[in-house]
Amino acid sequence: MIHAHAAREPRAPLTPHTIETGPLRPFEVELTVTHCGICHSDIHLIDDDWQISQYPLVPGHEVVGTVAACGPAVTDVRVGQRVGVGWQSGSCLTCEWCLRGDEMCCAQEEATCVGRPGGFADRLRVDSRFAHPLPDALASEQAAPLLCAGITVYAPLAADVRPGMRVGVIGIGGLGHLALQFARAMGAEVTAFSTTPDKAAEAERCGAHRFILSRDARQMEQARGTLDYLLSTVTVPLDWPLWLDLLRPRGTLTLVGASPGTVSVSPMALIVGQKAIRGSAIGGRAAMRAMLAFAARTGVRPQVEVVPLRDVNAALAKVRANQARYRIVLAA
Amino acid sequence: MIHAHAAREPRAPLTPHTIETGPLRPFEVELTVTHCGICHSDIHLIDDDWQISQYPLVPGHEVVGTVAACGPAVTDVRVGQRVGVGWQSGSCLTCEWCLRGDEMCCAQEEATCVGRPGGFADRLRVDSRFAHPLPDALASEQAAPLLCAGITVYAPLAADVRPGMRVGVIGIGGLGHLALQFARAMGAEVTAFSTTPDKAAEAERCGAHRFILSRDARQMEQARGTLDYLLSTVTVPLDWPLWLDLLRPRGTLTLVGASPGTVSVSPMALIVGQKAIRGSAIGGRAAMRAMLAFAARTGVRPQVEVVPLRDVNAALAKVRANQARYRIVLAA
Repeated sequence: MIHAHAAREPRAPLTPHTIETGPLRPFEVELTVTHCGICHSDIHLIDDDWQISQYPLVPGHEVVGTVAACGPAVTDVRVGQRVGVGWQSGSCLTCEWCLRGDEMCCAQEEATCVGRPGGFADRLRVDSRFAHPLPDALASEQAAPLLCAGITVYAPLAADVRPGMRVGVIGIGGLGHLALQFARAMGAEVTAFSTTPDKAAEAERCGAHRFILSRDARQMEQARGTLDYLLSTVTVPLDWPLWLDLLRPRGTLTLVGASPGTVSVSPMALIVGQKAIRGSAIGGRAAMRAMLAFAARTGVRPQVEVVPLRDVNAALAKVRANQARYRIVLAA
Repeated sequence: MIHAHAAREPRAPLTPHTIETGPLRPFEVELTVTHCGICHSDIHLIDDDWQISQYPLVPGHEVVGTVAACGPAVTDVRVGQRVGVGWQSGSCLTCEWCLRGDEMCCAQEEATCVGRPGGFADRLRVDSRFAHPLPDALASEQAAPLLCAGITVYAPLAADVRPGMRVGVIGIGGLGHLALQFARAMGAEVTAFSTTPDKAAEAERCGAHRFILSRDARQMEQARGTLDYLLSTVTVPLDWPLWLDLLRPRGTLTLVGASPGTVSVSPMALIVGQKAIRGSAIGGRAAMRAMLAFAARTGVRPQVEVVPLRDVNAALAKVRANQARYRIVLAA
């Protein structure tokens, strides 16, 4: 029996919900959940913004827990071990993408809290191959946000950033404050872009060498042609040509936040400066484990506010109001 | 004295034009021009489409010639040597981009026929550092189109294509028919896209494993999700989401042709499939020399029609009418 918190319909508050469980499947483990981060994607799922939600819906995909039981085929984790589970909880493990370590590209990708109960619960059942052992250096409440927010920004940065590159992060929130830290730890020269002036000091603490108020046309003008890489973590409309202008030749604008509408730029703006716009979503299992080890070693840590699971609705309200700085983690 | 063919004003036919020359500058060479390709960019310059033209305007930036004289500081080529000159004929040679071999990104980039007389002439003066020695295996009329059309498609393909990748080329013309050959020689599985059914056989001869009539909705539907890389060589508007749909996860759409209007795609279309759209323009000096050696070795050759320089206006008319298959090369 799993005791969870579920939305019964789109936009509804969460209410207690129990789920009967049968025997574990061969590769399944049952975790005793100790912590679960709240991601904006949980809100999108509760609200059925992506038309993929099934109700009752138990959100939660930044899950840290202890292995309580293992299915008969599990060999990679053991009872008592502390593990983390992110957005992805399954894939075919046999296709080209899975073999390449790009499990998130697998056509049979499964998500932790889509069509199955997520981590806003006392227990979680998940394929052991997507339960990632956590380095001891990471406290559980700090590990939780790394499992989705962390991997989402780490994967593109780790693939693209070279030491000494000038990296800009658009939006200083749950994702952005981690992106600043990762980029700094990778040896980049880091610029934070925010519409909120009072985030300047926090951005600096996260490793930013420079803070630019993106609503200030003069500051933006001065930043033209100064960056090799821009990572957009925001989900608001962007002035695409303006941001592209901030890039130096061969620069890349990577989107991990899904801005509404369309990306619109002139082909010439891409061609003349040899520029690129790309999208990135989470990361594969190898990247996840590399990210956890990297964070543990370099000191990248989310800034979290720990809230008891029973106060989940108040916590969700705070995330909806964009008042979380920078990640709320629910604790058992 | 240089005897050239120049446009006196935008869209004018070319007429004979003589240019007085003084002593050679230290790093300058004078070439006896034997061949010069006609590129669509020459038409854009004649017509002042980019508002950078100066009249009288002598077009021509796919120039093959023999070194007739060297300035006092020239050490890298010698009198009598056969060399080629492409779009770019100068850069500062000291900035970050020049040091990296990305001379086309240099802020002081100079173009062969912008603000100076190009190759539709009996002689050309150019910085020897941008006069590229030509492999013996390349006939001069074949080398000429490689110097702009060739490098334009080779540079992005050489940077991005891995053996076995599924590469599509959009538009089978001066650039496209070379891109097919380069991609094939790089070990890719090659698909040609054209709106002209009777180019199928020629595309196959250029190395395409598959020909898709891009106006045929059924063929396009069947091609969805089958390509790792798309190179667009066309300058017409494209249905961007449709072409992005043709890409597999992690796929890239690279533009070397400047379509009018804007590239418009939803951020989610980029994010979910981890896709990218990038622009590319010509290539640096190292890439140019690698391209020439690659073409010489692998048999990549443009399909050319050689026309006497005196018939330049008839040749330009044919290029304007899109009737060149695939490159007209003017010969002295």
